Amino acid sequence: MIDVAVLGATGAVGQRFIQLLENHPWFRVAEVAASERSAGRTYAEACRWILPTPMPANIANLTVLPLEASFRSPVVMSALPSEVAKTLEPELAKRGHLVSSNTSAHRMAEDVPLLLPELNADHVQLVDVQRRQRGWSSGALVTMSNCTTVPAAVALAPLLPFGVQQVQIVSMQAISGGGYPGVASFDIFDNVLPYIGGEEEKVEAEPRKILGALSGNQVVPLAAIFSASCNRVPVLDGHTVIVSVKFAQTPSLASVREAWQAFRPHEWAHNLPSLPDSVLLYNEGLDRPQPRLDRDNGRGMATTVGRLRACPVLDIKFVALSHNTVRGAAGGAILNAELLVARGYGQRLQVPTAQQAHA
Amino acid sequence: MIDVAVLGATGAVGQRFIQLLENHPWFRVAEVAASERSAGRTYAEACRWILPTPMPANIANLTVLPLEASFRSPVVMSALPSEVAKTLEPELAKRGHLVSSNTSAHRMAEDVPLLLPELNADHVQLVDVQRRQRGWSSGALVTMSNCTTVPAAVALAPLLPFGVQQVQIVSMQAISGGGYPGVASFDIFDNVLPYIGGEEEKVEAEPRKILGALSGNQVVPLAAIFSASCNRVPVLDGHTVIVSVKFAQTPSLASVREAWQAFRPHEWAHNLPSLPDSVLLYNEGLDRPQPRLDRDNGRGMATTVGRLRACPVLDIKFVALSHNTVRGAAGGAILNAELLVARGYGQRLQVPTAQQAHA
Amino acid sequence: MIDVAVLGATGAVGQRFIQLLENHPWFRVAEVAASERSAGRTYAEACRWILPTPMPANIANLTVLPLEASFRSPVVMSALPSEVAKTLEPELAKRGHLVSSNTSAHRMAEDVPLLLPELNADHVQLVDVQRRQRGWSSGALVTMSNCTTVPAAVALAPLLPFGVQQVQIVSMQAISGGGYPGVASFDIFDNVLPYIGGEEEKVEAEPRKILGALSGNQVVPLAAIFSASCNRVPVLDGHTVIVSVKFAQTPSLASVREAWQAFRPHEWAHNLPSLPDSVLLYNEGLDRPQPRLDRDNGRGMATTVGRLRACPVLDIKFVALSHNTVRGAAGGAILNAELLVARGYGQRLQVPTAQQAHA
Amino acid sequence: MIDVAVLGATGAVGQRFIQLLENHPWFRVAEVAASERSAGRTYAEACRWILPTPMPANIANLTVLPLEASFRSPVVMSALPSEVAKTLEPELAKRGHLVSSNTSAHRMAEDVPLLLPELNADHVQLVDVQRRQRGWSSGALVTMSNCTTVPAAVALAPLLPFGVQQVQIVSMQAISGGGYPGVASFDIFDNVLPYIGGEEEKVEAEPRKILGALSGNQVVPLAAIFSASCNRVPVLDGHTVIVSVKFAQTPSLASVREAWQAFRPHEWAHNLPSLPDSVLLYNEGLDRPQPRLDRDNGRGMATTVGRLRACPVLDIKFVALSHNTVRGAAGGAILNAELLVARGYGQRLQVPTAQQAHA
Repeated sequence: MIDVAVLGATGAVGQRFIQLLENHPWFRVAEVAASERSAGRTYAEACRWILPTPMPANIANLTVLPLEASFRSPVVMSALPSEVAKTLEPELAKRGHLVSSNTSAHRMAEDVPLLLPELNADHVQLVDVQRRQRGWSSGALVTMSNCTTVPAAVALAPLLPFGVQQVQIVSMQAISGGGYPGVASFDIFDNVLPYIGGEEEKVEAEPRKILGALSGNQVVPLAAIFSASCNRVPVLDGHTVIVSVKFAQTPSLASVREAWQAFRPHEWAHNLPSLPDSVLLYNEGLDRPQPRLDRDNGRGMATTVGRLRACPVLDIKFVALSHNTVRGAAGGAILNAELLVARGYGQRLQVPTAQQAHA
Repeated sequence: MIDVAVLGATGAVGQRFIQLLENHPWFRVAEVAASERSAGRTYAEACRWILPTPMPANIANLTVLPLEASFRSPVVMSALPSEVAKTLEPELAKRGHLVSSNTSAHRMAEDVPLLLPELNADHVQLVDVQRRQRGWSSGALVTMSNCTTVPAAVALAPLLPFGVQQVQIVSMQAISGGGYPGVASFDIFDNVLPYIGGEEEKVEAEPRKILGALSGNQVVPLAAIFSASCNRVPVLDGHTVIVSVKFAQTPSLASVREAWQAFRPHEWAHNLPSLPDSVLLYNEGLDRPQPRLDRDNGRGMATTVGRLRACPVLDIKFVALSHNTVRGAAGGAILNAELLVARGYGQRLQVPTAQQAHA
Repeated sequence: MIDVAVLGATGAVGQRFIQLLENHPWFRVAEVAASERSAGRTYAEACRWILPTPMPANIANLTVLPLEASFRSPVVMSALPSEVAKTLEPELAKRGHLVSSNTSAHRMAEDVPLLLPELNADHVQLVDVQRRQRGWSSGALVTMSNCTTVPAAVALAPLLPFGVQQVQIVSMQAISGGGYPGVASFDIFDNVLPYIGGEEEKVEAEPRKILGALSGNQVVPLAAIFSASCNRVPVLDGHTVIVSVKFAQTPSLASVREAWQAFRPHEWAHNLPSLPDSVLLYNEGLDRPQPRLDRDNGRGMATTVGRLRACPVLDIKFVALSHNTVRGAAGGAILNAELLVARGYGQRLQVPTAQQAHA
Repeated sequence: MIDVAVLGATGAVGQRFIQLLENHPWFRVAEVAASERSAGRTYAEACRWILPTPMPANIANLTVLPLEASFRSPVVMSALPSEVAKTLEPELAKRGHLVSSNTSAHRMAEDVPLLLPELNADHVQLVDVQRRQRGWSSGALVTMSNCTTVPAAVALAPLLPFGVQQVQIVSMQAISGGGYPGVASFDIFDNVLPYIGGEEEKVEAEPRKILGALSGNQVVPLAAIFSASCNRVPVLDGHTVIVSVKFAQTPSLASVREAWQAFRPHEWAHNLPSLPDSVLLYNEGLDRPQPRLDRDNGRGMATTVGRLRACPVLDIKFVALSHNTVRGAAGGAILNAELLVARGYGQRLQVPTAQQAHA
């Protein structure tokens, strides 16, 4: 098994890391780190566990390390606040760790892959550029996108052949996206918050990089214009996006549906343990997808689309949904780490065989 | 005081009529009618009152009339189901009643005004056409729009001089819009329902009629294209719409703001008792409007807009909100009835003076 | 595998039956039946599926049978409305079916076992009385308690040696307990409903029978007085009860805790597939149990208790919680059917071996 | 008008003070004070206003004073955190202010009145003791109870003649009781929190002082035993309590109802502007009171009781409800200040006549 250090381990995304890695066939949480307030206490003491499955017993007794610790785990998963991640993540990569980050700090850096492996696993090759340019011998830094970017990017990827030109996105985002304690109940109860700081900028920029093409040393962003309006709604988990799209060649609704149904993940993503059977599900129900009913599809790693119909203003419109703290955060960063390992970026790291993993 | 019959009086909108008319300066609820199940019982017996203010004592003792009754009130306010309204509302108008309907059945009929008096009070003149064409001597039928149409139409009206061409609307609608018992808690709890039957068609059609120009015997619809995506969210009252607009001449954000701030209701709407001081409020808060904080603005009769900014795909985008069962239903239909009376369509009806109203 | 017919299969509890039986090692849903409205259509057509896991594919295509059908499955699980169950359930038992009912109609009948097998599996012997008295040769009727009874009864069972004399129960019940569509969102949203029809009577009577002793042909009810106040709160699943108890010999808090921790299920319940590893969990957290965090303990079949402390009025007080539609309804009725089969009441029914079950 | 300083003015209760005092006939908010973080900024800048009515324009421009300021307002209303209130409130009383506190710090002090004026207005005379003992010439310190104490105490007061002996209280408390930001949405969403720190101790102690008799220099607490279990539920405003009571002489249900209906507030509370027409309402509805429907009764100052019935364990049980941030916090403290002024404790303070108040 490959040892993993989880940074920001006591927060909402950190807890998801711990939960999702509990029975992971390749990875084993060996170290947990968090801010000064938590360091030195056991994880059970330091963490107000907010997930409905029990805290894994072996993690409960780990001592929380300070963020400045020398980690011995080759793989680092980061759920750090952006300002901390800014310097610490590259520092850890420099020291030789494979850093899979869920933070926004480095997503848009030219030599940092922004990965949804089912869509753009080949972008992981930016790590070669990164190592060359930064002089990192064996470390790497890869990033997971914003949680609201996921359902939009996954739903759009199969439609790129039609020439995506304009995309309108209105999101209805779950409260778990705000971290913990995050959104005050008094603010969101019986309410909609039509603003989430910094979110719209991310949703307008990230899909262009994710859906862009790797060319030589860089990713050429998708030449499409995105407009995003981001809202918080009283839903626990699961981000819903309402998407309208204009294409170079307007496809029929049937051909959009076919493109979705024919979609297969990038071949480098095949066999990654966290990839679900179907990364994109089309639900024909008149009123689907819905967050409570569809967020757990594919163990929280699938995106569900539905309500495909013509848009009188652009060309088509539809609804897409994925789980914001699983596919859209911790689960996604784990998938990225799996890709790093599977592509051999951890030189001495061996993926355990199925037998070893179960032993 | 002018006697009013409320039809569909025991339902969610019917109760709002009763509540809002309790201390109305011109109108007095004299008759309540509902379906067979309720007829013959007192209102207190027949109605499961769901509003937080007490049921008015004088209404509690009224006997609920059947819908086929001969009403003696000159004014009829209708919260009937569409299929019942289809034949009953014109029949009542034919019998000489001023019918102010909140139902969708007749909204798009060519000779029926679809009124938001602050925007298009002059459309009430279609009643003259209606009377001529249908041979009604003293009756009239006017309609109130769909509740989601309201915030969009009110926010767009001041912007017509810039040449509205395309409008994208994504709604987040309150559960009270589904009537009572309406939406099952099990469906909407911790959830978003991305579909509301028939709603998108209404929101794409009604604003064009409301914002159209009266020309001779007809309303020429606004030559703009609307696209709507309607969603139910776990909010009690207040419909929020996310709007993107493309114009013939792109206005600056400042000029949009000025247009909103300079907006004055149609002069025929001045002095109508249900018109709030401001029909359109611009809230500069970064995260406003919000349904829980802004739905009651102007006693539930104002529309609040905010978050004005450039739209990378169309020209501008913003958020608008109004109370769906007050401005968007019962309150709106009362305002329409006030307009009918103020414009003299009830020949023998006299608006009480302020002194009389208080006596 | 043993064929099962699910009656009332399209409702909220019926769906839970279908879900929980999907991979059951002994039982296989072979028939589904529901009211006239649904009969004749496929299950997929007739049922608005409201659970977050997908409808099992093999059930989707079953034709819904009318309730009057001749079922060929030896085991019948019933989620019928009480008035229908009243005559149909005994009729089916008479015809030779093993009927495991989730309905209240026959719970308190003297010769009908009211089973929580972990507590009173021996009560299943009332079936012998039942068969003798009613002249049923091979059929049987056993019942599952009210969902709110469960957490109280499970928490009290280990404390019987101290002489339970008085019990005060205040419940905070989930909306799924009201069935589907059940509680209107408009009623429960931002609200507490301090009344649930018929519930308090059940919660005051059923624990006495469940915790009573089988003596000859009858159950002698526990000689304790129960007082219940039942409330609906805006929670999706999971009933929480606040319990105060007075004993003949006041135990120390430590001995109560020990009694809970030492509790073992009735030996006849051992090895029943639906029995969780622990039927009773004591959570030491200051603020536990909580419905969202604890309802799924033991795959929804465990009861979690916490906040044990002295009660200034009676002797002790604590909080208990269990999943109302799993342990408190469908899961409980499945457990009862397992007990019937394991105790040999289905004469020709063979429990599959582990190998057969997995084949 | 009498000038008032509001301390802790930017918090949840502080905002309620500002809101409720906006059109008060006697009081005028002249000064606002808050912690260092806010001091020096305008109230509009310092305060995230969370109430659905607009922030009063004249308050928005007040500069927030530091808590150490020398206030010139004769009356001080305090919504301070307990640890700050501990020293600051007596200090302000010593300086001559009439301090009406909503904090728990001094509630149980022997010479500090704990006032619900409708029940125990005469306890205000402890101010005389206080002044004597502490050497305060013109200042005073009076306190408002815990918000959950209110519905229980108001409902029990009329029943004292029957000899209240034992009281079981289970509360279902609104999230606004946790202040702002207070309860994290992630904690309370789809959940019940069966623990509120320090609450049960207060609810078990405070009613005994409130319902006790003033005798000479002290209040003799009610000789009854209280047991409280306090829970947070997903409700915005309004605390519901489930109460069971044992009496010395068991009254009939009819005589309990009569006692409630015959209840009149203490005569010293008559004519206080914040006293509602009825302080105690008995609602005969089968499922009342409910927080969303009944919390605003009497402009949020009334307590509503219902569901009176026999308790099999004690004698009777019922449900009581009041608004936790109006009657249970700011509104209550304003009422207490009114009582101080009306009883002449502010020597030079004159209550404005009705004409002056309206001018």
